[in-house]
Amino acid sequence: MADHPHRGIHRRRPLQHRGQRAGCPGIEGSPGLGGGAPLRSSDDQCGVLPCALAMEAMGGIRDGGSGGGGVRGNLRLRRQHPRQPRLADGRSYLGRITLLGQGSKGMEPSDLRDGYIFHESSAEEKDRMIHNAQCTCLNCPAADMTAGETTIRCRRQPGKGTFDPRSITFDRCPEWQLTPYGYMLKKMRVMILGVDGYLGWTLALWLGALGCEVSGVDNYARRNWVKERGAHTIVPIARMTDRLRTAKEVLGIEINFREMDILKDRSRLQEFIDEVRPEAIVYYGECPSAPYSMIDLEHACYVQENNVLGTLGVLFMMRDLVPQTSLIKLGTMGEYGTPITGRPIFEGMFPPDAVLKWRGREWSLGGELIPRDPGSFYHLSKVHDTYNIYKACRFWGLRSYDIMQGVIYGVHTPQVAADPRLRTRLDMDECFGTVINRFVAQAVIGFPLTMYGSGEQIRGFIGLEDAMQCMSRLISHPPKRGEYAVVNQMSGYYSIRQLAETVAKIGSQEFGLTVTIQRVENPRVEYDIHPYEPIYDRLRDEFGFEAKVSLEEEIYRMLELLTQPHIKARIEEKKHLILPRTWWSGKKKIVESLEVIEEITYKAKK
Amino acid sequence: MADHPHRGIHRRRPLQHRGQRAGCPGIEGSPGLGGGAPLRSSDDQCGVLPCALAMEAMGGIRDGGSGGGGVRGNLRLRRQHPRQPRLADGRSYLGRITLLGQGSKGMEPSDLRDGYIFHESSAEEKDRMIHNAQCTCLNCPAADMTAGETTIRCRRQPGKGTFDPRSITFDRCPEWQLTPYGYMLKKMRVMILGVDGYLGWTLALWLGALGCEVSGVDNYARRNWVKERGAHTIVPIARMTDRLRTAKEVLGIEINFREMDILKDRSRLQEFIDEVRPEAIVYYGECPSAPYSMIDLEHACYVQENNVLGTLGVLFMMRDLVPQTSLIKLGTMGEYGTPITGRPIFEGMFPPDAVLKWRGREWSLGGELIPRDPGSFYHLSKVHDTYNIYKACRFWGLRSYDIMQGVIYGVHTPQVAADPRLRTRLDMDECFGTVINRFVAQAVIGFPLTMYGSGEQIRGFIGLEDAMQCMSRLISHPPKRGEYAVVNQMSGYYSIRQLAETVAKIGSQEFGLTVTIQRVENPRVEYDIHPYEPIYDRLRDEFGFEAKVSLEEEIYRMLELLTQPHIKARIEEKKHLILPRTWWSGKKKIVESLEVIEEITYKAKK
Repeated sequence: MADHPHRGIHRRRPLQHRGQRAGCPGIEGSPGLGGGAPLRSSDDQCGVLPCALAMEAMGGIRDGGSGGGGVRGNLRLRRQHPRQPRLADGRSYLGRITLLGQGSKGMEPSDLRDGYIFHESSAEEKDRMIHNAQCTCLNCPAADMTAGETTIRCRRQPGKGTFDPRSITFDRCPEWQLTPYGYMLKKMRVMILGVDGYLGWTLALWLGALGCEVSGVDNYARRNWVKERGAHTIVPIARMTDRLRTAKEVLGIEINFREMDILKDRSRLQEFIDEVRPEAIVYYGECPSAPYSMIDLEHACYVQENNVLGTLGVLFMMRDLVPQTSLIKLGTMGEYGTPITGRPIFEGMFPPDAVLKWRGREWSLGGELIPRDPGSFYHLSKVHDTYNIYKACRFWGLRSYDIMQGVIYGVHTPQVAADPRLRTRLDMDECFGTVINRFVAQAVIGFPLTMYGSGEQIRGFIGLEDAMQCMSRLISHPPKRGEYAVVNQMSGYYSIRQLAETVAKIGSQEFGLTVTIQRVENPRVEYDIHPYEPIYDRLRDEFGFEAKVSLEEEIYRMLELLTQPHIKARIEEKKHLILPRTWWSGKKKIVESLEVIEEITYKAKK
Repeated sequence: MADHPHRGIHRRRPLQHRGQRAGCPGIEGSPGLGGGAPLRSSDDQCGVLPCALAMEAMGGIRDGGSGGGGVRGNLRLRRQHPRQPRLADGRSYLGRITLLGQGSKGMEPSDLRDGYIFHESSAEEKDRMIHNAQCTCLNCPAADMTAGETTIRCRRQPGKGTFDPRSITFDRCPEWQLTPYGYMLKKMRVMILGVDGYLGWTLALWLGALGCEVSGVDNYARRNWVKERGAHTIVPIARMTDRLRTAKEVLGIEINFREMDILKDRSRLQEFIDEVRPEAIVYYGECPSAPYSMIDLEHACYVQENNVLGTLGVLFMMRDLVPQTSLIKLGTMGEYGTPITGRPIFEGMFPPDAVLKWRGREWSLGGELIPRDPGSFYHLSKVHDTYNIYKACRFWGLRSYDIMQGVIYGVHTPQVAADPRLRTRLDMDECFGTVINRFVAQAVIGFPLTMYGSGEQIRGFIGLEDAMQCMSRLISHPPKRGEYAVVNQMSGYYSIRQLAETVAKIGSQEFGLTVTIQRVENPRVEYDIHPYEPIYDRLRDEFGFEAKVSLEEEIYRMLELLTQPHIKARIEEKKHLILPRTWWSGKKKIVESLEVIEEITYKAKK
């Protein structure tokens, strides 16, 4: 094994640095913007700062914490400086006060829910508006538009009678209150389908902390799929009853949960929706694994049936029960594939100024769905959803954001870190372990980080907490009637090799691990050398999103958590499930015969 | 009611004549090319010519029959003159001799199967090649490519050993024989999924007549869907056992049929495929109705499950059992919608010379799937299929033609007309009656022809016999390994108004019917005024297709058949099922409240 980190690597094209668009994180010393939360939390048990009064960095903080980007070893870690959200009156949101006396045990339920602090803004600052301050009742799920869009009634304020929906903006409506993510309906009723999953559980607590009335359903399918593959979540998670009880005890968050299968218990779901009358529905209830969908016919069919027909059912229920409610549906950047021509990957549709040229004639392509090139039957199911939802909005005037999310990673939000029983799952097996999560787990136990094929595949990524931020912003800024909109939800893009190297560097330099990177045969059918130009402006430009979590910081946090002995043991226990057994070609190939194409080792710092 | 045919019609844009591209049929005296088969068969019972020795116009005939376009009343009917198919040696295929002594009863089984006649071609004619003459073993399903594509074995001629697949062309291979539709594998094994349907049954007999070994499966779903809606096929059809017996007795065609559900009886289908080892699989096994899919959630789910997961299963079976076999899959022109910008509707993918222009930069779009805008959950299911098949070809090297078929119409092929027990179904109810078929049925019983909305919706159409011709040409020219290709299968495009007017004119002038046209509220969500520029060149340019059936001629044939008293009675019996009851919006609306926007009557000729 080479001890120079680059020995043996044949670079087929220059490795470019693709920093996150907003801000310049990076491990090679790109200039940071100063500010930001402390990089290292010394009390991972609850994942929050060990001081008695800390500024929990939900909306970004101006000062407090350890100052600028931290330097550890020879690795410069930087976090991005989030743009401060602003109120309509020009005051700036600074952060949130969280009392954290003795870790989680001493917290009062209200600690994580209250206490936004503001400062008076300068004149210039007043110009920067909260993203949804100027939205009107046309965007509000409480507006009863049965009589049309010119005069409406407010379901929350029936006493107001009928009025012009354009006459009231969110920043002037008493039902909308300011949060770090824009105005949000007071006690907004949000239903999460798939509330027991990695994202679902995290979002439930997150929204609960924001003051939403959260309801959710799940059939524990994710637990069962992982069990079926012989794996387990490496971060232990509590049973749902414990989760719910703990959420109430520790965070004061009550979640209205009902166990059911979205696809098979339709009448019960219908009842539940009718009872709760959610003002937003977050659809996380799909099977999210590409390899799982490629195992065989049964798995491919299961994934497409569960995902596509599950969504289709919810669309009909929304039409019949809550047509004013927005559907925030999780898709994936993987719907698009990687266009080999290098054309930009737009956000769902061609932009208005895109033009088709053919044989001397030209047409606008604006508003048409861009071509998709999904990489597995799972990704295909998401494309099918896209088309079904797109048309349901046309047929019935439903409202939906279809989120093309980058590959997710990370373990941290303030809520899941508040108590071990509130932790969200983390998978590292072939099927359910997304690449960064899997690399970190591999690094912890000295298992080589395995890159498929060239390792030059580029994908968009987003950290768990940033994803939650995006979801809050989308939920708080509902689409108008009939609007089907797509956002590309990612905070940066990296090649697989860059990720492996980053994990290896942080693991070896900061945690004393010896990390090897191996390049192995690619089980997938995909381009492994390709251009990549994703457009992901909408969340930033229209919803005020700025990434808050840097790749390096979150990898650091993950290593902190995963190196804990009881978690490390859980990784060791299932390490035989890391290497790919599922081949896109359908061939049966055993793990042992994987060909190692190249290998590179990062030695632990003495 | 007005007796001037145009009174009361407000034309929102000039009614252009959209003749079929190849040739100029038309009811307004466009110049025909002369030649063609007799327009009127006097013996509809068997649907073939009443002379003892007739040239059955399968490949088109040079002379014989009644000469040029016939003139009946003041309506000039023309048929297109098909381009003569040519052999590689320059001989021209002229037609097929069919002995038809005493109608169907006196026919020998071999009569419809044998006896192609040829003439020696001129030097110029020799240049015009049969479409697939120069295809090589790379296109042949009998080629065993397990060792790669450079040396292969022939499954049909194992004695030949291994050889270069490019060394033998179809016109030189003894396993390929000339038919009117190009070279075809001798006794080619073709499996039809959905063999009991309108198209499936017609194709089974058609291919049987061409010498194919036809197998097929069906679960009689189409019969059941129609029964569920309270309707029936207005052209009576025999039970499958009778159909099979009659096909053998009358046409000498043996069909290897097995009753099963493609989706639910997967292991049986797998066995059947393994047993038959089809060299082409025609996928007609889907639910083809837009309104049926819009009835409610159950129907939408049923259609998507049946169609999408049924196809997905077959893809896996093909991968595992017959990866060299081509999948000829029925899609629909309705996958595309009607782009409001007027951009061309390409054949599945952007052509190589299509360019995306955006902000001063340009990229090729060539080969990317064009945007789809399907009009119902049924159409959506076809889009889902498109994506699944497209990727299965990429993942596994499967071969497929995905056929975007125009709206089908008609009743005639020589085989289904050969005996009443061989007739294929014809539906006219809201769900399963395609527009021309429905209009003709309505005209026969004096029920107003109902146009939805403006009546200016334009769609591509194809006659039943032309569709069969296309299928034969596609089956005889298989794609190469990994090739996913799309053809737009239509022979012309018309507005709904043009169709109604054509049916009304022929019905009133030739059959003495009084025909009224009504414009009613549109139950669908669709553009009803829109540009339309479909590209449908591939079948003509690459597969030698030329439309043989003109719209007017087939409508004439349909009126001949449907005015027969027993069929007219069957229409009368179910006329309450003609008007739409299914509203895209989901609202419940009764038929009686349909608003008649305009009305126009064509009086019978005295």
